[in-house]
Amino acid sequence: MPEYMNYIRRVEPYIPGDQPDFSDMIKLNTNENPYPPSPEVLKAIESCSLESLRLYPDPASRKLNKAIAERYGLNEEQVFTGVGSDDVIAMCFLTFFNSDKPLLFPDITYAFYPVWAEMLRIPYELVPLNDSFEIVPEDYNRENGGIIFPNPNAPTGDLLPIEAIESIIKNNPDSIVMVDEAYIDFGGASAVPLINKYHNLIVVQTFSKSRALAGMRIGYAMSNPEIIKALNDVKYSFNSYTMNRQVIEAGTAAIKDEKYFQSITSKIIATRERAKAEFKTLGFEFCDSMSNFLFVTHPDHDAKALFDALKEKHIFVRYFSSNPRIKQYLRVTIGTDDEMDKLFEFLRDYMKK
Amino acid sequence: MPEYMNYIRRVEPYIPGDQPDFSDMIKLNTNENPYPPSPEVLKAIESCSLESLRLYPDPASRKLNKAIAERYGLNEEQVFTGVGSDDVIAMCFLTFFNSDKPLLFPDITYAFYPVWAEMLRIPYELVPLNDSFEIVPEDYNRENGGIIFPNPNAPTGDLLPIEAIESIIKNNPDSIVMVDEAYIDFGGASAVPLINKYHNLIVVQTFSKSRALAGMRIGYAMSNPEIIKALNDVKYSFNSYTMNRQVIEAGTAAIKDEKYFQSITSKIIATRERAKAEFKTLGFEFCDSMSNFLFVTHPDHDAKALFDALKEKHIFVRYFSSNPRIKQYLRVTIGTDDEMDKLFEFLRDYMKK
Repeated sequence: MPEYMNYIRRVEPYIPGDQPDFSDMIKLNTNENPYPPSPEVLKAIESCSLESLRLYPDPASRKLNKAIAERYGLNEEQVFTGVGSDDVIAMCFLTFFNSDKPLLFPDITYAFYPVWAEMLRIPYELVPLNDSFEIVPEDYNRENGGIIFPNPNAPTGDLLPIEAIESIIKNNPDSIVMVDEAYIDFGGASAVPLINKYHNLIVVQTFSKSRALAGMRIGYAMSNPEIIKALNDVKYSFNSYTMNRQVIEAGTAAIKDEKYFQSITSKIIATRERAKAEFKTLGFEFCDSMSNFLFVTHPDHDAKALFDALKEKHIFVRYFSSNPRIKQYLRVTIGTDDEMDKLFEFLRDYMKK
Repeated sequence: MPEYMNYIRRVEPYIPGDQPDFSDMIKLNTNENPYPPSPEVLKAIESCSLESLRLYPDPASRKLNKAIAERYGLNEEQVFTGVGSDDVIAMCFLTFFNSDKPLLFPDITYAFYPVWAEMLRIPYELVPLNDSFEIVPEDYNRENGGIIFPNPNAPTGDLLPIEAIESIIKNNPDSIVMVDEAYIDFGGASAVPLINKYHNLIVVQTFSKSRALAGMRIGYAMSNPEIIKALNDVKYSFNSYTMNRQVIEAGTAAIKDEKYFQSITSKIIATRERAKAEFKTLGFEFCDSMSNFLFVTHPDHDAKALFDALKEKHIFVRYFSSNPRIKQYLRVTIGTDDEMDKLFEFLRDYMKK
C-alpha cells in the first residue's frame, strides 16, 4: 500500500438524502417548498447575458449581501453568503470551533452537525432533548467550545421561544452560539434582533425552504462585523468565488419579493395546521411543529413499515433509522393541499387494513 | 475579550484579484476567456424551469460528471466536480495532505497553494524554479507529503513536457501528485492519459478558462475511483449539494460542444502567438507561454509603473508585488485581437516617451 493512503482523511461517508425523480411522485422527504420560487427569480436569471458568464462573479457577492442586510435591518458587513446553509455552517465550524472543549448540540437534531465535527476533528457532546423532545436551555450551562442548534429544531419542528434562545446566548458569553434558522419563517420568532445585543451570536438562514430555491444553493449567516470578517478571511482562503453570477441575481430577486414570500409561506402554514388536525384524527402523535414539516408517530403502526408502504406508492417521506429514540417517527414535509390530500387518503386506507 | 476569540482560525486574509467593472475596460488581469461561452450553454440554462429550482439538485451531479468522463475517455467514477477548481483543490488538500511531511510546490506558482496550506495547517516547502523560471523535475525527488504544480505553470505560462510530468509521478509513488491543468487546453499535452497508469495522480481542470465559464464556477478532478471516492466522502461531509441545477446543465452543454471549444481555443492560441511577436518587437522578455497569458518583463521599464499607467487607461493586467523574484513582471491575459491591438497601441506610445 502506498504511504499516501495513510494520510487520507477518512470519514464515515455521509449519504445525502434520497432525491427520487418520478413524474407522479409526492416528494415530502427533504423539506423543499411545494411552490415555485418568485417569478422575479426567472427574470433575474435571464438578466445575466451569456457573454457575462465568461467573467468571474463578484467574490464578495455584495449585491446579494446588501439585499439580505436590508431585509433584516442589518449592515452589509453583518452578512456572509455561501453555497447553501451547509456551506455556511461548515465554514463556521472551520472558523470558530477550534477549542479543545466540546461543541454542544442536541442528540436529536440536524444530522450534519456530528458529520462536520468528525470531519474537522472537533470534539463534541450531545445534549439529550427531554422526553417531550424539547431543548432544555439550562442543559447548555456547562463548559463548552461552542453551541449550535436549529430553531425550530429538526426533525422535531419544536420551537424555542426567543426568551429561551436569549438565555442560552447570555449564559454562554465565552462561546459562539449558532442558531440555525432554516425553518424560522414558518411561524417562529427569529433571533436576528439579538445580533446587535450579543457579540457571540451567529444566526444562519437559507433560501432552500421558505424562499423555494433549494436548486440554487444559497445560505447566509448574520452576526457582528468582526465575526463576519473572520468568516470571510477563512472563506477567501478556501474558495473566493463561491456564488456564481446567476445565483447572486436570483437570490437578490427572491429576497426582494417580500409579497410573494409572505403569500407562499402563509399557504404552507395553513396547510400545516390542517395537516395537524388530519394526523390527529388518524391517531398520530407529534410535536406542535412551527416548521414546514411534521414529525409524527403512531402508537399502532410501525414507522418503517409505513415508510415502505408510502414509498411503494411514490409518496416519499423521511425515516431516520440510525437514532433509536426516533425510529418510530416519520418526518413529513408539508406539500400542497392537493399533495397532502393524497397522503391522507392513503393513510386513511392504510389504517383501515 | 471573550474566550471564543482565542479559538477563531486566524488566517492572513487573502485578497481576491481585482474585478473592475467599467464599460470601456480591457480586462486582461484574471485570465478569463475573451469569447463568450458556447451558445448551447444558454439553451441548457433555459431548460431549467423556474418550478424545478424549488428542488435540490443531484448531489452527485452525475449528468455533468458523465459528460466530463466521456470527453476524457474515463469512467464516471473517475471524475469529481466542484465550485471552480479552487473548491476542488481545497477539497483535495483537506482530503489528502494530512502528513507531517511537507507538501511541495514551486516558489513561483498559483498564489493559492500556500494560502490553502496555511489555512489547513499543512506543512509545506517551496521548490525554487530555475533561473529561466522552469520547474526542474529532479528537485521533487525528496521526502514529501504530496506535490502540486500547475502545468503550464502560472504566472509564467511555462509548459513541462509530458515525460517530465511522468518522471515526477513515477519518482514519488508514495505521494499524491496533483497536476493543476487550468491552462492545458492552450497548447499543452494533458496528463490525463497517465491516470490509468499511475495510482497517485490527480489531474485538476476548470471551466473558467478554455470553456469561458468563469461566471458559473465549475472545476473538476480526474483520478482513479479510489481517490475520487475518498474525495467524495469528504465533500459529502462538508456540503453535499455544491453544484446547482443550472450549473449542472450549463457545464454539460459546454463540455459537449467540442467544435465551439476548439474554435475559440485556436483563436486564442493564434492571438497569443501574434502577441509574442509584438511584445518581442517592443523589447519585452517572457517565457514561451503555452497558456492564455504572457508573463512579460522589460529591461528598461519598471513593471509597477507600467501597470499603473495601463490601469489609468482602464487596461487591467496583473502585477504580483509580494514575490521579489517576479516584481519586474506583468501577467497579461490574451484578449481578443482588437483588445490586444489597443494594448500594443498603448505600449508603443508608452515606450516612445
